[in-house]
Amino acid sequence: MQIVGELINASRKKVREDIRDKNTEKIVQVARDQHEAGADFIDVNAGIFVGKEADYVKWLVQTVQENVDTPCCIDSPDPKVIEEAVKVHKGIPMMNSISLESERYENMISVVKGTDMKIIALCMSDEGMPHTKDARMKIADKLVNGLVKNNVDIGNIYLDPLVQPIGSGDTLGMEFLNTIETIHHEYEGVHTICGLSNISYGIPKRQFANQAFMIMAITKGLDSAIMNPLDKKMMASIIVAEMLAGKDEFCSNYMNAYREGLLGD
Amino acid sequence: MQIVGELINASRKKVREDIRDKNTEKIVQVARDQHEAGADFIDVNAGIFVGKEADYVKWLVQTVQENVDTPCCIDSPDPKVIEEAVKVHKGIPMMNSISLESERYENMISVVKGTDMKIIALCMSDEGMPHTKDARMKIADKLVNGLVKNNVDIGNIYLDPLVQPIGSGDTLGMEFLNTIETIHHEYEGVHTICGLSNISYGIPKRQFANQAFMIMAITKGLDSAIMNPLDKKMMASIIVAEMLAGKDEFCSNYMNAYREGLLGD
Repeated sequence: MQIVGELINASRKKVREDIRDKNTEKIVQVARDQHEAGADFIDVNAGIFVGKEADYVKWLVQTVQENVDTPCCIDSPDPKVIEEAVKVHKGIPMMNSISLESERYENMISVVKGTDMKIIALCMSDEGMPHTKDARMKIADKLVNGLVKNNVDIGNIYLDPLVQPIGSGDTLGMEFLNTIETIHHEYEGVHTICGLSNISYGIPKRQFANQAFMIMAITKGLDSAIMNPLDKKMMASIIVAEMLAGKDEFCSNYMNAYREGLLGD
Repeated sequence: MQIVGELINASRKKVREDIRDKNTEKIVQVARDQHEAGADFIDVNAGIFVGKEADYVKWLVQTVQENVDTPCCIDSPDPKVIEEAVKVHKGIPMMNSISLESERYENMISVVKGTDMKIIALCMSDEGMPHTKDARMKIADKLVNGLVKNNVDIGNIYLDPLVQPIGSGDTLGMEFLNTIETIHHEYEGVHTICGLSNISYGIPKRQFANQAFMIMAITKGLDSAIMNPLDKKMMASIIVAEMLAGKDEFCSNYMNAYREGLLGD
């Protein structure tokens, strides 16, 4: 499982203040904590700062990478912000995100074409957010073909089928999960990714439901997630599910986690 | 999820003593506790008492059914024991189990043919226990066809693909899970069932791994289980997984469980 640590996001009050104050120490701490907990990429998002987003995102990338040895996931709907931030990024960044919405698609394609960036592609079009597997697959197909045609390596595509709350419809969980399975079946080498906490919107015991949904998604092939790597129960859920799904040779990652006390009481 | 409560089994020391002493009060208590916790069937097994098995199993069926309004799952490899116990059983029993091992198959077919018993059929043959999905499906196919040919309703067949320890091979979990999925895809109306604790044999944090594997199996379509219904964390795992898998209309079972404090801390 490739993990994108989601905590450096200006929509979180404390982080918003730390970004506004350019508080290096605090930002580095959040980045380091996530890296040590297992994040493969550190998401950086300053979308709330209208007009100053590019400046802040560049500062975040530099601040994170000067102190923690990890690539960033540059998180913005604005292609100019991505373009600026990539210039100061060391190594290969991830970008979050392109979608099939026409304006966003056209602008983002020109930023990512021919690059070796890792690209999160949302299954969303001008018609809005799809609810069924079939509607998602139609969008996924156009995204994968469009990106490959623009010289993006298929292994750098991370499709996000977009989780919708189970409270809005009994079938929404399985439609999402079956999309994950079908993507891996149809497009060898493509990754799937999501931020899955939306599944439990409006119901109680959200973390409990989120952990179960992560286990279900891994069963269907999910191989990447945008999440809080400091959430120990979620990390334990990933470790056990990957072991049971045959992605942990000789159960060695599971055994190490057990010895380090990471599997809970 | 149809739940077969597994606790009245003479291989458990305390229960063995209660059966030997024909301690009605104790046996009824174990049956009632399981029924109240959600068991749809009460498994009765006295296999350890050689020569007296039929007598004890009949006593168990009668003792359970005189006090708790629930069918039993008559659990014996001996067709004579099943035959005897069925005679004293009220309503429709489950039987555990037939397999494709020639002697057992021939003897059990004559007991179950043309009945409306619910039949657990193990994916095991004279060649032993299969390890792959394909080997299991070959056996499953013969079992389903053989039973249907002998006038067993397809909806009364409960196929058990037999869980094997993940510690014995990284792929054994997915081979089992993919069998569950394929069975539901190939044979509409057939049920799948298992006792899944074997998955965690030899590794630490067994209950944690068992809960995750239950969630994974439900994701693939598992609709019945032989288990301890007094295991609250396992029951909570089933409730959340069924809700997320679209088997809980309006999340109402999940919401009720939450209000009753059944989803844990």
